[in-house]
This record gives sequence, C-alpha cells and structure tokens, in this order.
Amino acid sequence: MKKVKTAVVGASGYTGQELLRILLRHAGVELVCATSRQYAGQRVSDLFPRFRHVPGADLCFTDSDVAAIAATGAEAAFLALPHGVSAAYGRGLVEAGIRVIDLSADFRLNDPAVYEEFYGKPHPDVELMQEAVYGMPEWHRAEIEKARIVGSPGCYPTSIILPLVPLLKAGLLLPDDIVVNSGSGVSGAGRKADVQYHFCECNESMRAYSVPRHRHLSEIEQELSAAAGRKLTITFTPHLMPVNTGILTTTVAKLAPGTTLEQMTECYEKAYAHCPFVRLLGPGKPADTKHVTRTNFVDIGWAVDSRTNRAVLMSAEDNVIKGAGGQGVHAFNIMFGFDEAEGLWLI
Amino acid sequence: MKKVKTAVVGASGYTGQELLRILLRHAGVELVCATSRQYAGQRVSDLFPRFRHVPGADLCFTDSDVAAIAATGAEAAFLALPHGVSAAYGRGLVEAGIRVIDLSADFRLNDPAVYEEFYGKPHPDVELMQEAVYGMPEWHRAEIEKARIVGSPGCYPTSIILPLVPLLKAGLLLPDDIVVNSGSGVSGAGRKADVQYHFCECNESMRAYSVPRHRHLSEIEQELSAAAGRKLTITFTPHLMPVNTGILTTTVAKLAPGTTLEQMTECYEKAYAHCPFVRLLGPGKPADTKHVTRTNFVDIGWAVDSRTNRAVLMSAEDNVIKGAGGQGVHAFNIMFGFDEAEGLWLI
Amino acid sequence: MKKVKTAVVGASGYTGQELLRILLRHAGVELVCATSRQYAGQRVSDLFPRFRHVPGADLCFTDSDVAAIAATGAEAAFLALPHGVSAAYGRGLVEAGIRVIDLSADFRLNDPAVYEEFYGKPHPDVELMQEAVYGMPEWHRAEIEKARIVGSPGCYPTSIILPLVPLLKAGLLLPDDIVVNSGSGVSGAGRKADVQYHFCECNESMRAYSVPRHRHLSEIEQELSAAAGRKLTITFTPHLMPVNTGILTTTVAKLAPGTTLEQMTECYEKAYAHCPFVRLLGPGKPADTKHVTRTNFVDIGWAVDSRTNRAVLMSAEDNVIKGAGGQGVHAFNIMFGFDEAEGLWLI
Amino acid sequence: MKKVKTAVVGASGYTGQELLRILLRHAGVELVCATSRQYAGQRVSDLFPRFRHVPGADLCFTDSDVAAIAATGAEAAFLALPHGVSAAYGRGLVEAGIRVIDLSADFRLNDPAVYEEFYGKPHPDVELMQEAVYGMPEWHRAEIEKARIVGSPGCYPTSIILPLVPLLKAGLLLPDDIVVNSGSGVSGAGRKADVQYHFCECNESMRAYSVPRHRHLSEIEQELSAAAGRKLTITFTPHLMPVNTGILTTTVAKLAPGTTLEQMTECYEKAYAHCPFVRLLGPGKPADTKHVTRTNFVDIGWAVDSRTNRAVLMSAEDNVIKGAGGQGVHAFNIMFGFDEAEGLWLI
Repeated sequence: MKKVKTAVVGASGYTGQELLRILLRHAGVELVCATSRQYAGQRVSDLFPRFRHVPGADLCFTDSDVAAIAATGAEAAFLALPHGVSAAYGRGLVEAGIRVIDLSADFRLNDPAVYEEFYGKPHPDVELMQEAVYGMPEWHRAEIEKARIVGSPGCYPTSIILPLVPLLKAGLLLPDDIVVNSGSGVSGAGRKADVQYHFCECNESMRAYSVPRHRHLSEIEQELSAAAGRKLTITFTPHLMPVNTGILTTTVAKLAPGTTLEQMTECYEKAYAHCPFVRLLGPGKPADTKHVTRTNFVDIGWAVDSRTNRAVLMSAEDNVIKGAGGQGVHAFNIMFGFDEAEGLWLI
Repeated sequence: MKKVKTAVVGASGYTGQELLRILLRHAGVELVCATSRQYAGQRVSDLFPRFRHVPGADLCFTDSDVAAIAATGAEAAFLALPHGVSAAYGRGLVEAGIRVIDLSADFRLNDPAVYEEFYGKPHPDVELMQEAVYGMPEWHRAEIEKARIVGSPGCYPTSIILPLVPLLKAGLLLPDDIVVNSGSGVSGAGRKADVQYHFCECNESMRAYSVPRHRHLSEIEQELSAAAGRKLTITFTPHLMPVNTGILTTTVAKLAPGTTLEQMTECYEKAYAHCPFVRLLGPGKPADTKHVTRTNFVDIGWAVDSRTNRAVLMSAEDNVIKGAGGQGVHAFNIMFGFDEAEGLWLI
Repeated sequence: MKKVKTAVVGASGYTGQELLRILLRHAGVELVCATSRQYAGQRVSDLFPRFRHVPGADLCFTDSDVAAIAATGAEAAFLALPHGVSAAYGRGLVEAGIRVIDLSADFRLNDPAVYEEFYGKPHPDVELMQEAVYGMPEWHRAEIEKARIVGSPGCYPTSIILPLVPLLKAGLLLPDDIVVNSGSGVSGAGRKADVQYHFCECNESMRAYSVPRHRHLSEIEQELSAAAGRKLTITFTPHLMPVNTGILTTTVAKLAPGTTLEQMTECYEKAYAHCPFVRLLGPGKPADTKHVTRTNFVDIGWAVDSRTNRAVLMSAEDNVIKGAGGQGVHAFNIMFGFDEAEGLWLI
Repeated sequence: MKKVKTAVVGASGYTGQELLRILLRHAGVELVCATSRQYAGQRVSDLFPRFRHVPGADLCFTDSDVAAIAATGAEAAFLALPHGVSAAYGRGLVEAGIRVIDLSADFRLNDPAVYEEFYGKPHPDVELMQEAVYGMPEWHRAEIEKARIVGSPGCYPTSIILPLVPLLKAGLLLPDDIVVNSGSGVSGAGRKADVQYHFCECNESMRAYSVPRHRHLSEIEQELSAAAGRKLTITFTPHLMPVNTGILTTTVAKLAPGTTLEQMTECYEKAYAHCPFVRLLGPGKPADTKHVTRTNFVDIGWAVDSRTNRAVLMSAEDNVIKGAGGQGVHAFNIMFGFDEAEGLWLI
C-alpha cells in the first residue's frame, strides 16, 4: 500500500493521542511530524506511555511552524489545535500543497456572521473558511474527495446531525421542535490542569454546562438547516458525565403529521446502507456508550412516543474518535483514495 | 424529644439502607422493626457493615406480617417494598392504626385507570389508593399532616415536578411542549443480582432505557396537570449513569409569550421561600449531583434560551434520599409534629 | 451543651471541607472563623455548594493572621494547611491561649533529625514540635486531654498504626519483617489544578507513587518503634486508586514463633474494647473502603497465612475523616471534655 | 497470509469477548466456531454489540461438543471455560488433532498433588496435565512451539512471575521473603449475575479477598520455585479494584546481600531484550494500569528500598489480555509459526 507522509499538528492533547493511536497503526500512513509546543523534544511514547514499543512511536514532538512542517515532505496534515489556533496554520499549509484536516471549529462554518456570533470575533480567513468542506463522510463524501481543506465535525455535532439529517431530509420531523440533550466524557474538556476536571470534581458527578448556547450549535444548525431546506434553531444542553470518553445524545422532535415508526426505520436504512461506521440499532433500541468507546462507530436507535407524537433518537459515539480523530482519518482515507475504513476497524 | 415507634418494611435494598441511615440518627425515632424476608435473622449491621457500632444497628431483620408489625407497638411504618407488594400491606397497617409512608408507586396515583394503564393490572385497593396523599412536602404539606397513608413520590418525579410546578401554576410555560431528560445512579435499579448492573456493564457507560414510556410518567403528569389546571403529557427519557446515587434532570419547555428570566426567578423564590430542602441556585446556574448526593436537598437552576424561546430547568437530587427515604422522613416529620428538617440536615 | 469557639485555618481544601462538614453539625462548636487566602470573601457555601442552606454555612472565608484569629475569641483552632505552613501558625496561636489541632505533618514527630531527614529542612520550631502530642485517641488519649497542641496523625499512618500497635506491643509479630501496601482515594492528593489528577488520568487507573520512601514513614516508624520497644523500619508502598475517598491498607508481617490466630483476635479485642471508632471485623474478614467512607470508623480484619507464617492485616478508613478531619475532631472532643464521639456518628 | 481455522470454546464471558476482539482482527485466523451454551443461536455481535459491523462478527454461538468442534475443521481451539470444565474438553480436542490453548487453570500445573491441594479434588486427566506446557512465551517459547496443549498463565500469575523470574534466576533476591499485593479490575470476577459485583458494591470500593490462600498461588510458586532452583512460598493478597480491567502488582522482596539497583536494571534488560510485550519502565518508575489496559503489554518498574534492603517491583497489565486472551494468542502465534506479535499490536 502506498504511504502518505502525514503530519499531526498539536498532537499532545486527548484528541492528538487518539489520532496518533490510529495513525500509528494505519497501513497507508508514514508519520513524519508530530508537533507540540509544550512537549517538543520528548518522544511521543514518553508523553503517552501507552504507545511504548509500538513501531513508530519513538518519533519526537517538534515545535514546527508551517515551513518546518512543509520541509518534512508532508502531503497531509491533521490539526488538533485549540479553536482559533488552527486558522493561522490553514492558509500556509494549503498553499504549501499540503491537504489539511482540521479538527478544531475554525473551518466548519460557511457563514462568517455565524462564526462571529458564536466565536466572538471575525474569522481571520473567511475565504479559506468558505472553501473548506464540512468533513462528515456520510453526507459530504464527494466534496471531501477533492477538498484542499476539511473542517472535521465537532464531537457533539456528529452525534446530533447523523440521527437527524435523514429524517429532516425526508420531511418526517417538524423542524421547529427539536430538543437535544447530550452527555460527554471528561476527555472532551481537554487535557489541562484545571480544578474543575480534578478526579474528585467529576467522579460521582453529572452536570450541565454552557447553558443555553454552546458554540457547537452553530455547525449543528448549519447542517440541520441544510437538511430541512430552511433555517431552524434547536435547544441543546450538553452535560459532563463521569466517564473518560463517550457521547450519548438523546434527541426529541415533533413528528410530521402521519409519520410512523416504520417510515423512520426505512428512512434510516436507506440513508445509511453504505456507511460502515453508522450502526442502526433498530426501533426501540437505546444506544450505549460502552459499545462504541474506542471505536469509530456511531450507534443510533429510535422510538416513537405516541402519547406526545414525538420521535426519540438515541445516539452514541466516542467523542475523541468518531467525534474527532477517527472521523478525521475517515476523511483522510477518502481524500487519498484509501478504502474508507482503512485503519478504522477499531474494536 | 418524644420517640415515635417506627417500623421499616422491606429494609434490605438501597432505599431501605438509606432510610435506616436516617432513622438510626433521628432523635424522634425508636426503630422497633426492620423486615426482610431474605435476611431475616441477620442484624442490620451485618447486611450493611457501614452501620456497625452505630447505636441501634444491632437490630435483627424479621420476616414480619402485618400482625407482627402491629405487635411491636409501631405507630409509623415505612414501606420500602417493590411496586405491587406495598399495596398488600397498606390496608392492614392502616387498620391497625399505624400511619404509613409508602415509598413504592402503589399509593401515588388518584386515578385507577391511569394506574392500570401504566402498571398493567387493576389496583388491588382503589379506595385506599384514593385516600392516600401524594407525599411531596413542598406542595401537599397540609394533607400530609393528617394523612393515614402517604404515597411518597418517585425519584425521577421529584426532580421533575419541583422545578416545573411553580412555573406551570404561574402560567409562565406552555404546557404542551415539555421535554425531560434524566439520568439516575445505578442504585435506582435496586440491589439485585442482574448482569446488566454488573460493574463492568455500567462503568464507562451511559444509556437510555424504558423509552418511550417509563411508569413514572403517570405520577409526573398527574401532578403537572394539576399545576397547569388541565391535562398535559410530556416526553421523558430516563438514562442510567455510572454513579452510585444521584439524579440529574434537564427539563426544556416552551415559554408562555412574554415570560422573562426575571419572572422565573421571582416565581421560584416565592414558591420555595419556606422550603428548607429546595435550594435555588439562581439563573444560569447548572445543578450538579455531587453537591446533593447523600443529602435531602434538591438543587434547581434555570435559564432562558432566547434563540428558541424555551426555558431550560436543571435539577439535581439524591435518588435514594430526596427521591426516596429522605422525602419519606420529611413527610413523617410533618405527620408526627416534628420540625420538618429533623434528622435531615445530612451533608 | 457548651459551645467552643472554633477556627479552621486553611479551610478550602478537601480536608477543610470534611472538617467543616463535621463542625457545622457538631453540637459543641461555634464556628467563628474559616480562613482561606484564595477564597477570602466568599461564603463557605459558595465554595462548597453541598453546604448551602445548612445552618452556619453562610460564614465567609477570611484571610486572617494569628492576631485576627485570636480576635474572634477562638478557643480552638484546626490547621488544615499544607505541610510546612502550619508550623508558622502554631506558636502564635498557642501563645494566644488557643488550643491547636494541626492536621499537617508539622507537629507529628518527636525527633528533629527524623523531621529533617524526611522533610528536607530543619523544623522551624523544635521546642513546640516536641511539646506537641501525637493525636491518635486510641493510644494517646491522656496526653491529648491536656495538650496545648496536637499533631493529628496522617491518613496512611492511621490505617497502618492501628492494626499493628496492639500486636507489636504484645510481641505477636517480628518487628523486622513488615511490608505495607496502601491505596488512597484521589482526595488525598489535595484539591489542586494538576494534570496528573485530571479525571481521565486517574479514572480506570491504579499506580504506585513515592516509591520507596514516602514521608509518612517517619511518623509510622516512630509509633511502631515505640510499640515494639525498639527501632524498626518497614517497607511501605502507597498507591493512587480511582475513588474519591478511602484508604485500604494491607499489612503483611512475620509472626513471632507460636503466635496463633486466636491470640491475635484476643489481643485486638482487648486493645480496642473501648474505642468507638475501631471496628474489629474478625479473623478472615477483609475490610472494604465502601463501608467506612464518610465515617470516622476504621475497620480491621486479620488472617494468618500458615504457609509462610505471616499475619495479613487488612484495614480501611476514610482518608479525609478518620485519616484527617474526623480524627482531629475526636482529639478536640477529648481536649474540651465532650463525649469522644460527639459529632462523629457519621454514617 | 495462511489462515488457521480456529475455534473459541466458551466465548461469552469477558475473556471470551477479548479473545474474539483479537481474533476477529488477526490476519492469520479464520474463526470457524464460537461456543456458548447460554447464548447458542445468537450472533456474536448480538451479545457483544461492540462487534457489530466488524467483518466476521455475524458468526453465531453454538453449543458444540468436541465432535462438533472437530467437524468445523478447526486446527486450533482456545478454551475460555471455567476452571474444571476445560479438562473435559482437552483430551478430546487433542486426540482430534486440534492444538489447544486453555485459558483456565486446568492445565497449568505439573504436580497433581499441588492441583488437588489448591483445587480441592484430583485432576481428571493427570497425563494430559503433565504433558501440557505453561504458556508464558517469555520463558517457555521452545516448548510452546511444539505443544499439543498449552495451559495459558493466569492473570495474577503473569503480573507476578514476569518481574520476579529474572531476579530469582540471577540470585539477586532472597527467595524466602517475597510479599505480593495485587489489585484486579472487576472483569476478573467474570461476567455473572452476583450482587457482590453490582456496580454500587464495587464502585468507590477497594477490598482484599481470598485471603490468605488464593488458588493462583499454586502456579505462581511452581514457576518461581523453578526460577529460584528450589521450592519457595510467598504471601499473596489479591484485591478487587473499581476499574473494568487492569492488574496492578506490587512485589516486595529482600535483596540478596550486595544486590544493587544497577544489577537489577541490567538483569531485566538482558532477560527481556527480545520480548516485544514486556516494557521495562526503568528504575524508580511506577507502572500504571491505564497505560496497558486493552493492550498485550506488561509494564515493569523497580526500585530499591535501601532503608530495609528490599526490592520493590511494580507491574501492570490488562487482566483479560496479557493476563488471558492476548497471552493465549501470543502462544498461538508461536505454535502456528506467525510473527509472535501478529494481531497483538493493540494500543
């Protein structure tokens, strides 16, 4: 198999760790560069002792700028940087001919006004933002194939968009009555020293946060509006749950008049028949994070609450894999002509 | 302080354990009887080693029928039995002049048809069911005071009814657009041998269950309908979360036209000014189960999602205390003339 | 009951939190001062929302020096400060006539050379260090009663000293072959922002640390040597375990020739017959942290490994209660003439 | 790559699950049979939803006897059965020409008297037990290569034998003063309905069990005695710790006179230079289960306690992989001529 020279920029967080976990075992990847300002000079396997002895993991972190990354001969670059930092790398890498998969929120939106509303300042490179493709393989495969730069979807958005899009496209739901609750593992908060993520502050605890306007609403509503064919808004409440990884999302939405459970089932089966990482659990089957953690799968179950004429959609994924690194590698596989599941049969 | 002779019937589950934890330290209680078919003959402190050395905990479980309970001189009886089993004890105990606080679902509903719809068979003692008082001290104090038998509210219902009732009574919410998500600690499933509650099946896991029609909907809608002044139905999705105890509830509801955050705040402050165990966190403040576990408090925060004109209500409680044993003791205190917080300043 | 005016110095850590939890509900305490440099001006119940609505918890943290503490009229002061910081307060408080219970390691040792060996610098107030009493009620009750200053035992030491002292005093063990393994909940590391105590770094993890010479060895060997009647050294390996609180200690020691299981049992029963917080589980019974967390109990089980002629001692306690705040309050009760269990029947 | 037709007998427990996880992704395996009496007729991916969509996981469990297994054309069989059940399959499979890797304790011991002492009854097939090879690749590679039947080492024994054997062989430790403490994740107790493994009974809990004579002592002492060149006994205390998987072992042993830390380091480096799954952390470095869970690695650190002249050895592994299924596949790779790490670069 051909090997694509690949760089990971900002590789020392939890997303970087999972991305490296996948890339180190990916038959089509030659890892040429892993950057980390904080850990430059240390080996990947020193920061992440889980990787010791694994072929390739003795690579050292570097503190590389765009030129240094380009000098490694990288053909692809994953950016696992904080929101706002990726934008600065995007332009330079793309102009150096490196195809970019950005895991931050910097290249997910089309509308600069929405970016500014949710991120509090103008986007620094509107042109590139508008060129970038929303990297959800199930719905944007053709654009991803040709993209110079992909904005890989957020963790919550992935778990929310996938169950809703087919139903909205098919007109089975009323678009104005969507209420979403999600819980995320603590890895979603990042690998940082902060007393609120201390073990004793998270263990035996469950709490909502970012109420009522989490930033991910911007990309969620962008994709759902496109599916519904008109602008919609939703109510979304994220929660912190005491697990390392995993997102569980419960979506409740009013059914369009006459929608049946059977129609929902058919709609899903048709939409995701050829998607290896979407697993349809069937009607009445709740998703469980423990079956998807450390995999690239998203599990989706659905039910009809006939008492209130609402659909209940239940989805589960791993926030740092399907919701981050795994989905990014999925896009990479499409961009570089690999089998789309290459390196992603993680179980 | 006077001592009320008190029996606990079905004392060997997680609810029984918490109830005993409170009663053993309650200055107005003389524990005369704790029953358990399975553990009859064993000391309370043998089954629950946490209680060893605590004055009173050397009491032995008995396998007592109504007559045997009455023979202990009990003036009060808590029933911590499975749903469907309590009904059989209720009539006999009440007729023996023992005031009953039932923690099961058997005496919470007024309407026999609703009971049958949700519990799958006719209620065995409709008359007593209709006499019984719904034991939520914040809203039924006067009836509790005189009751012969109290149906103590369920764990989920408590966390859902308390944040909604004031707003519905005040007409601040539209009653037809209420969506509730809750998570419960595993103690809510009871202390039983079942592989689905094995540590490895619950740890690092989050999942919905009983979708779309959990039995607790019956009492929730009964109380909310009474507050709204007309019949309403809600969508409620319970989840199992990987903690021992705690319930976190997120309730989303459409605001009545013109409702403001300030009105919500005022409404709560007025409704719960004299309720020692309802803690109002204030606007924009999420509740966190870790601040209420092992206490009789329920914490409530609230927010307005102005993008969708919805209220987001966030509540947390301990499922086996405020949601079971503690709330039962609160009712007991009212019934027997104690300070309502007696024995309940658990922190 | 009389009320002793009491100050807590350094009240914003996990030990401070547990100490406040006990003192707020202690019938003989009037809390006059809780200090915290970092949180001065905030209410205790703001930092620890668990305490909201609890009588007394609206006290504000202050940034008080010795004079300001004395000006509150305090008769007793608990110091829940980091090691090395307490010493600076001790002298001033004692000279102001305030009786001190220090929960740090500053006043636990008798020998200044040992202090310097283990803590890396000379003790700043050797005279006061040598006056201070080792605050273990089970073995130093008479001295505690009259003490001006008590050095309350460390968390690990409490769980190690209590099972060993009776057997060493009775000559049932050989003093030169003692190997101790302990695990502690993450609260033992303190409430601080440090990535190594991030939820994801501790959850699903178990690891040793401070190998081979943890500082607590100094006080452990001091007390064990006193019991054995001659200097001894032990091997002690502490571990971090993924729970909030709790210490589990397994101690293995060579039996003196001829020692039987029955002798061990008798020895324990005699030694701890009048100690309300030492619970003897009996021969062959392992201790379990879940039965002692949030209580002031230490549970002790024991066995004989006849294949190797060793004793296996198993002890469990809550590191922040019996191993810190609860043991401190126990000493306080003795110092001020309360029933020794006052405020400590925590279950 | 050639494909070996492989059966898994007793595939529905936690060990079976991990074994299947590895075999489903192993390039040299064709899974022809997975047996489970309880789940016969269900697909592997129904019982273990984690495996849905994974190529091969739609295989159905069967309730097969030896003849039925042989009829599948299986060349290799893994037995993941309870202790005592494997023995009944061993003889038949071997005589059918199927090479057996048994993960139970039935084929690990050489001495029938030791078997009877620890397992309470005579071994049903002493001849085959004595033919069987102890399947630890690091120390028995040549015998494994030719074996008809391998007794794969137990989880605790693996974590204990690997750090001790090189030092004992080199004479760096005194063989009569070895004290071992281990903690295991709850998966070690098996996937069974038993209230003692209920989430609420294990979470926030740590406890010893099987004190003082766990059955695994028999194989541990067999291998250590062989390394030391004479019979030795040890004290071993296993604990249950609140994680899904992982074993952490802390071994303390008296150093032979004159042994230095440097000698220990050299001894380890020499012993394990060519062992891909033994990772030497170096002197003073504690092992952490979180770096080995879900991998086939065992991590080993070591220190010298110069105050007591003891070695402290710290080892971590995944109990169901390196301690069970992974080690079994490692032996399988050797038996069938694959690269020994084939399918085992799990990270």
